[in-house]
Amino acid sequence: MISVDQALQKIMARLSECRPTECMLSNSVGHILAEDVQSDIDSPPYDKSLVDGYAVLAEDVKQDVVLEVLEEVLAGQTPTKSIHPKAAIQIMTGAPLPPDASAVVMVEQTSRDQQKVIIHQDTIQPEANIMRQATSLSQGETILSQGTLIRPIEVGILAEIGCTNVPVYQPPKLAIISTGDELVQATTTPQAGQIRNSNGPLLQALATSFGAEAQSLGIGLDNFETLSDLVATGLESDILILSGGVSAGVKDLVPAVLDRHGVEQVFHKLKLKPGKPLWFGVLSSADRQTMVFGLPGNPVSSLVCFLLFVAPVIFRMRGKTSECLQETTACLTADFQQRGDRPTYFPAQLTERNGNRYVTPLAWKGSADQRTLSEANALAFFKAGNQLYPNGEEISVFKIPS
Amino acid sequence: MISVDQALQKIMARLSECRPTECMLSNSVGHILAEDVQSDIDSPPYDKSLVDGYAVLAEDVKQDVVLEVLEEVLAGQTPTKSIHPKAAIQIMTGAPLPPDASAVVMVEQTSRDQQKVIIHQDTIQPEANIMRQATSLSQGETILSQGTLIRPIEVGILAEIGCTNVPVYQPPKLAIISTGDELVQATTTPQAGQIRNSNGPLLQALATSFGAEAQSLGIGLDNFETLSDLVATGLESDILILSGGVSAGVKDLVPAVLDRHGVEQVFHKLKLKPGKPLWFGVLSSADRQTMVFGLPGNPVSSLVCFLLFVAPVIFRMRGKTSECLQETTACLTADFQQRGDRPTYFPAQLTERNGNRYVTPLAWKGSADQRTLSEANALAFFKAGNQLYPNGEEISVFKIPS
Repeated sequence: MISVDQALQKIMARLSECRPTECMLSNSVGHILAEDVQSDIDSPPYDKSLVDGYAVLAEDVKQDVVLEVLEEVLAGQTPTKSIHPKAAIQIMTGAPLPPDASAVVMVEQTSRDQQKVIIHQDTIQPEANIMRQATSLSQGETILSQGTLIRPIEVGILAEIGCTNVPVYQPPKLAIISTGDELVQATTTPQAGQIRNSNGPLLQALATSFGAEAQSLGIGLDNFETLSDLVATGLESDILILSGGVSAGVKDLVPAVLDRHGVEQVFHKLKLKPGKPLWFGVLSSADRQTMVFGLPGNPVSSLVCFLLFVAPVIFRMRGKTSECLQETTACLTADFQQRGDRPTYFPAQLTERNGNRYVTPLAWKGSADQRTLSEANALAFFKAGNQLYPNGEEISVFKIPS
Repeated sequence: MISVDQALQKIMARLSECRPTECMLSNSVGHILAEDVQSDIDSPPYDKSLVDGYAVLAEDVKQDVVLEVLEEVLAGQTPTKSIHPKAAIQIMTGAPLPPDASAVVMVEQTSRDQQKVIIHQDTIQPEANIMRQATSLSQGETILSQGTLIRPIEVGILAEIGCTNVPVYQPPKLAIISTGDELVQATTTPQAGQIRNSNGPLLQALATSFGAEAQSLGIGLDNFETLSDLVATGLESDILILSGGVSAGVKDLVPAVLDRHGVEQVFHKLKLKPGKPLWFGVLSSADRQTMVFGLPGNPVSSLVCFLLFVAPVIFRMRGKTSECLQETTACLTADFQQRGDRPTYFPAQLTERNGNRYVTPLAWKGSADQRTLSEANALAFFKAGNQLYPNGEEISVFKIPS
């Protein structure tokens, strides 16, 4: 069996190129810029005042000097006069500076007497409270580079430079099929031998939270033809996830159905606990391809396999270069006995106290114990091989994004 | 002038109660549970196998023992026979355990010879590879508590317990008006004296990212009646943000317009840099209220005021008790000269190398320099008072959520 790293390499080797598209500025948060974006304007568009106050010649400013107020310039207006010695023009924050002005005295440092203003400060530096044209943005200059993650801050910047149709990478389309005759929809009360399909909603929420356009195709019963029809629909997506049906059970039809549709198996099973039965393959045609993941049917294995293998694919297809799972270290709060020949990613709770990080592997009652996962915000990592990790030992931990 | 802490207290004292509502499970990520949620089922619903293999009596298991295979139970089927000595029933992962079975031997530890199975392990513990009924969930038990943040993991759990209409707190409705005659829409090329409205998109993106239902009402010109009409619409929301129009400029109409609509001013101006002109008030009626924020017009002040004062309101109205801005400490990478009597929240870049955190205040060209913000992922905090913070000094830093 291959290792986690080998599996990830084999998956990443099959990634297709990111596809550029455009989205509206108001929907762009979380996307990655697919192109450099240039400014079409200077910002400020003119020399401007950073405060409410009086534009002056800096050399005129001294305690109790009286200047003549030539005019008042409001936001949205332009000054009509130049500053000359012993004169001032009242302007507002953001207003264009009158020609020849070399500083702005804050209104709080003045008092007004009709067409006169009295200055109450000893001196002022030239350029004080002035922002010169194009200090922040210069026309034609690249302001945000390809690969930038768009946060609310970048939305403000894109608005400032008039980029309202934003070039971004297209989120991958992802389809989910939950397989198994025992499954019923979450809205149904399960009868004897049935369980609710919780993997479908879990995987759809995970895929959406990592930025895929995720769609659940519902429950695929353990019947070759029915499952095959659903898979045909799923293969129209960029990523198809099948949950269940890939372990060694008698009716595990998934690999056979995928084979019929021409999906090339890249690997099946790997050294990983939980998640050993993971199946991965690719369907390629001239113009497009679908990456197909057969995830183990239990929720914890599903979660681990999704985070380790599917999430990075979504990230890369969206143009993200950051890691899906942030790795850190933390001290165990209890002994942990690791057994067996597979590295383990164990659901755990990561906490921080006084700048120190602690990790508590959960009291996990086995692979079907989904409920205990609600306490998990991390995966604690233990290498393959029988080993007792004592309380207090520093281990690797991967944070689960919330 | 009041302090940041006093301002926050005055705002939080006016918070109205969270309003419960229901949302569809598929839209529930990011919401907070408004009620405890109980399980309507046992999980597992029956004693079940955790592996593909053979249900047996544990005491029968020894190397090379041959057991009679009584039947094969598939997922979705129920066993029809009980285990008796020297007998086995083949079952799949997740299948119900036959009565009297006390362990499941993994299929990998067996070989099959028609109706016989040969065991290849020395011994097995009773209960091995079995998960008993209700180990994970018990009918009627509270599974997730009021106040729980719904992540993809919780979506899986809610699906498992059939909670498809999820009781959550209603996100606040938030309206944004950008004021100023100098503003034009982002789609327009600004003429002399004009700048694009970037605050509207910035604030809308911020509010959305913190979980409000945010709507931009567009640009409010500096005209009492026009602005008043827009404000009337904005006051139908839970939170109204006005951007600009609250400093000491001649045409700063916002406080006057709000007064006409009966909005009670709670405070105006505080000791904060940037963000001193912040205005806060409340419009209350018998059945509802609107919290009104007049934010300074420049993007950096807007950002700081939003993060410090508006984001916590959105969080609390959604039922979140966590902090919006995670505080940490980091070492300065350059000298920083703090001046003046206002505490400063300076845009900065927080990085982590070898487990140490470093913070670099940005080369910020003044309040209108929005572009430099794209390098910021944190606000560096400096107390009021003239002080040189030397390179290497550990300071407080607030992370900006991305």
